[in-house]
Amino acid sequence: MNDTLKIADKVFTSRLFTGTGKFGNHQLMEDALLASGSELVTVALRRVSIDGEDDDILRHLHHPHIHLLPNTSGVRNADEAVFAAKLAREALQTNWLKLEIHPDPKYLMPDPIETLKAAERLVKEGFVVLPYIHADPVLCKRLEEVGVAAVMPLGSPIGSNMGLKTLEFLHIIIEQSNVPVVVDAGIGTPSHAAAAMEAGADAVLVNTAIAVSGDPVRIATAFRMAVEAGRMAYNAGTAAIRTQAESSSPLTDFLN
Amino acid sequence: MNDTLKIADKVFTSRLFTGTGKFGNHQLMEDALLASGSELVTVALRRVSIDGEDDDILRHLHHPHIHLLPNTSGVRNADEAVFAAKLAREALQTNWLKLEIHPDPKYLMPDPIETLKAAERLVKEGFVVLPYIHADPVLCKRLEEVGVAAVMPLGSPIGSNMGLKTLEFLHIIIEQSNVPVVVDAGIGTPSHAAAAMEAGADAVLVNTAIAVSGDPVRIATAFRMAVEAGRMAYNAGTAAIRTQAESSSPLTDFLN
Amino acid sequence: MNDTLKIADKVFTSRLFTGTGKFGNHQLMEDALLASGSELVTVALRRVSIDGEDDDILRHLHHPHIHLLPNTSGVRNADEAVFAAKLAREALQTNWLKLEIHPDPKYLMPDPIETLKAAERLVKEGFVVLPYIHADPVLCKRLEEVGVAAVMPLGSPIGSNMGLKTLEFLHIIIEQSNVPVVVDAGIGTPSHAAAAMEAGADAVLVNTAIAVSGDPVRIATAFRMAVEAGRMAYNAGTAAIRTQAESSSPLTDFLN
Amino acid sequence: MNDTLKIADKVFTSRLFTGTGKFGNHQLMEDALLASGSELVTVALRRVSIDGEDDDILRHLHHPHIHLLPNTSGVRNADEAVFAAKLAREALQTNWLKLEIHPDPKYLMPDPIETLKAAERLVKEGFVVLPYIHADPVLCKRLEEVGVAAVMPLGSPIGSNMGLKTLEFLHIIIEQSNVPVVVDAGIGTPSHAAAAMEAGADAVLVNTAIAVSGDPVRIATAFRMAVEAGRMAYNAGTAAIRTQAESSSPLTDFLN
Repeated sequence: MNDTLKIADKVFTSRLFTGTGKFGNHQLMEDALLASGSELVTVALRRVSIDGEDDDILRHLHHPHIHLLPNTSGVRNADEAVFAAKLAREALQTNWLKLEIHPDPKYLMPDPIETLKAAERLVKEGFVVLPYIHADPVLCKRLEEVGVAAVMPLGSPIGSNMGLKTLEFLHIIIEQSNVPVVVDAGIGTPSHAAAAMEAGADAVLVNTAIAVSGDPVRIATAFRMAVEAGRMAYNAGTAAIRTQAESSSPLTDFLN
Repeated sequence: MNDTLKIADKVFTSRLFTGTGKFGNHQLMEDALLASGSELVTVALRRVSIDGEDDDILRHLHHPHIHLLPNTSGVRNADEAVFAAKLAREALQTNWLKLEIHPDPKYLMPDPIETLKAAERLVKEGFVVLPYIHADPVLCKRLEEVGVAAVMPLGSPIGSNMGLKTLEFLHIIIEQSNVPVVVDAGIGTPSHAAAAMEAGADAVLVNTAIAVSGDPVRIATAFRMAVEAGRMAYNAGTAAIRTQAESSSPLTDFLN
Repeated sequence: MNDTLKIADKVFTSRLFTGTGKFGNHQLMEDALLASGSELVTVALRRVSIDGEDDDILRHLHHPHIHLLPNTSGVRNADEAVFAAKLAREALQTNWLKLEIHPDPKYLMPDPIETLKAAERLVKEGFVVLPYIHADPVLCKRLEEVGVAAVMPLGSPIGSNMGLKTLEFLHIIIEQSNVPVVVDAGIGTPSHAAAAMEAGADAVLVNTAIAVSGDPVRIATAFRMAVEAGRMAYNAGTAAIRTQAESSSPLTDFLN
Repeated sequence: MNDTLKIADKVFTSRLFTGTGKFGNHQLMEDALLASGSELVTVALRRVSIDGEDDDILRHLHHPHIHLLPNTSGVRNADEAVFAAKLAREALQTNWLKLEIHPDPKYLMPDPIETLKAAERLVKEGFVVLPYIHADPVLCKRLEEVGVAAVMPLGSPIGSNMGLKTLEFLHIIIEQSNVPVVVDAGIGTPSHAAAAMEAGADAVLVNTAIAVSGDPVRIATAFRMAVEAGRMAYNAGTAAIRTQAESSSPLTDFLN
């Protein structure tokens, strides 16, 4: 079966997107990302903007199957986001962009108003925009209307590893969306990732849970398998929840 | 790394145990069980006790890597369990036994008192006993004391597909047990199975969720991958849950 | 202790806000609202806009302690909301307004963009605005900045009775807000209402769960008590969750 | 309406049972218990067994509406429990007994086997037995068969304040039981207590959450109200959970 994911003009065979933050060193990052099988890797602009660095992060991301997804992490409003996006396009030679606007330094929650405003402008300027947002079904539709390539609702606060606290709202988003839905933020374990895929998400983005693990390469492999397992289960159709028990085995009636 | 599971004298490379109930037909069952990679398959005594059946279930379970685990599904007390166990040993030529005693025909909840009584007798008679029980930490220790080979606490009611409702108690059981812990009943999706493995369970038993799926072979494959992913995550060490956000990316401070 | 709630210029002793929809008849509604002790009752514009109705709803809401809170239920954008708000002000002689904008007819999820736009205009026109919104911490701050009198984040989808699915985000909103936080939508049982108050919400709004109950007067009384209990617990400080057991009783050591 | 609870020969108007452990001092305990309205108060044998104590705990429990419920906290098997029960009957002049047997000093989980054994003996010796047990539906039925006056399944580990982790199993127990069901252990907040009552529990027992609060008298009052609210909601019939939104207000169609 051909179960690929298309976003804008790119076709992905892996539904596990990853990030580059928080790894102990660049080599470990590279090894983990290769183990993950990820074909879309987000990178903060700042990581790539310093000239003359000896061990530049980009060198470690230079693999034919890896597409870069610059992000605007740290910007606080639409103007800063558009500015950062253009710098990123210049520096990384790609018009793909993970749009993140979070004015709140403590919980890093995304700003729905500035995100929509920036998305609209960036789409008009030719960017392929993937906005990181709250799991807000109406906001997702409005972003879709201005032309984003996918939506990236959060599962729980960034870096919290709490999993799919927003599941009820992700169900609605997935049901209503005409663009791919990528669950981003809060996914702390492979089972969380599998659950997102079982719920019908098109992909997940995992960073912290891989980067801060005691064994990033192994956990990256685990996430890869869990995402495939969850997707496979979604395609097979998972069983419904029942409120009354039903025996798997025929009750042994020879005793009666 | 050599991460095998030993129960009594047998070594397993797969940590996904399966069952034979509820499949549409024997061939479909065989295909799904092969896809699952399972090396321990439980079968109800009644399924194998009819002479002269044309398409006997055992023929479909006859693979070198598959060990049979007869179960006593349907018995209501210790006496019936011991009687059924001996019949099963005779019929299937194995002293392994999944001990299930559930007097309640509606929710099929296991009986702790009769299970302990039967376990003690069966161990003395040379059986390798794996009892299916409530997620009761003290009962697990008492069963361990009488010599069971593993404990099989439930995740939620049989056939409910509700997942790990007993997680808080499974944590305690896993922490305290000196015999393998196999989570049985209630596992409805691959993400549930992965979560059990991440929590440190030694194995899971899945039947209904595979058998009643629209595509048992594919979902069996998904469960196989999810169990491996969950185990791998457990070995790698999963990330802790945080209550405050932490950005994966360095905040873009070039804007300041 | 004087534990009142102030919103704009009004002081409330009851923290249970209610609605008027879905009741079997107006008399039953009146009886239930009186039993609830509610001092702020939301009413849809359409209910009050028909001339010459024999049993007008307003007659049943005419009690000295009950303040009306007209809502804009059914409008799909800011323009419609402003228009409806002015009609409501005229008809009900109050500048208080529950601002609801939900373009989605299936799940009735609120629109963050139009809600902020309308809130800004209505505040400038002298309305006391209480917007119904997703549990989005940044949106709450932005609404606070344009001058709303309180924020009304949802607990779960309207009419779902699922309780506080958004609890993690409500915690953040409550921590950060400088205006009262009223949890609206999804509260299906008194225990849900108590949990919202224990989490530090300033008030809750309950409608469906009272109106469609088999006994609205009794359930309204139950909600009143639960809200008071939850608030009292919040003020007393609730106990922390522990991960290891601690006996309430001294262990009986005379046996040793 | 006359909604009292009968256990053995006693009729209770309050469904909030309490304990005496962990309070800062006896006077604070007395004040909190009076505020709770509780008519059944459990007390560990050891607290009352020291002669010549200046401020004996019993003096603070000497109120006409308060019945004492001695408990066997700390015993590790049936023999110790029976011995402790007889001492308690002698010392407190009551044949009521909360039977607690927990061999595990860390999590204080109850032992199902010893509890059933002790219960059978104590019932035969004329005790009114209320056993504290895991939320195990079959064990509850077996205890009922040997004549216990009520069953006391746990909500979550003692002192954990985690609430109703066992809710799925409590539903089954409540559906099947012919004796009163008292949820004991783990209830940390008034909303937890209300939820237990809404689920149909006959009563709850709360100790730690009251005793260790910063304001035991106020939190005791909150628990009293929450238990009444939850019971009232149960009697009124709570609303069902819906998976699709339904507006409380008529959608404002005058705009169309």
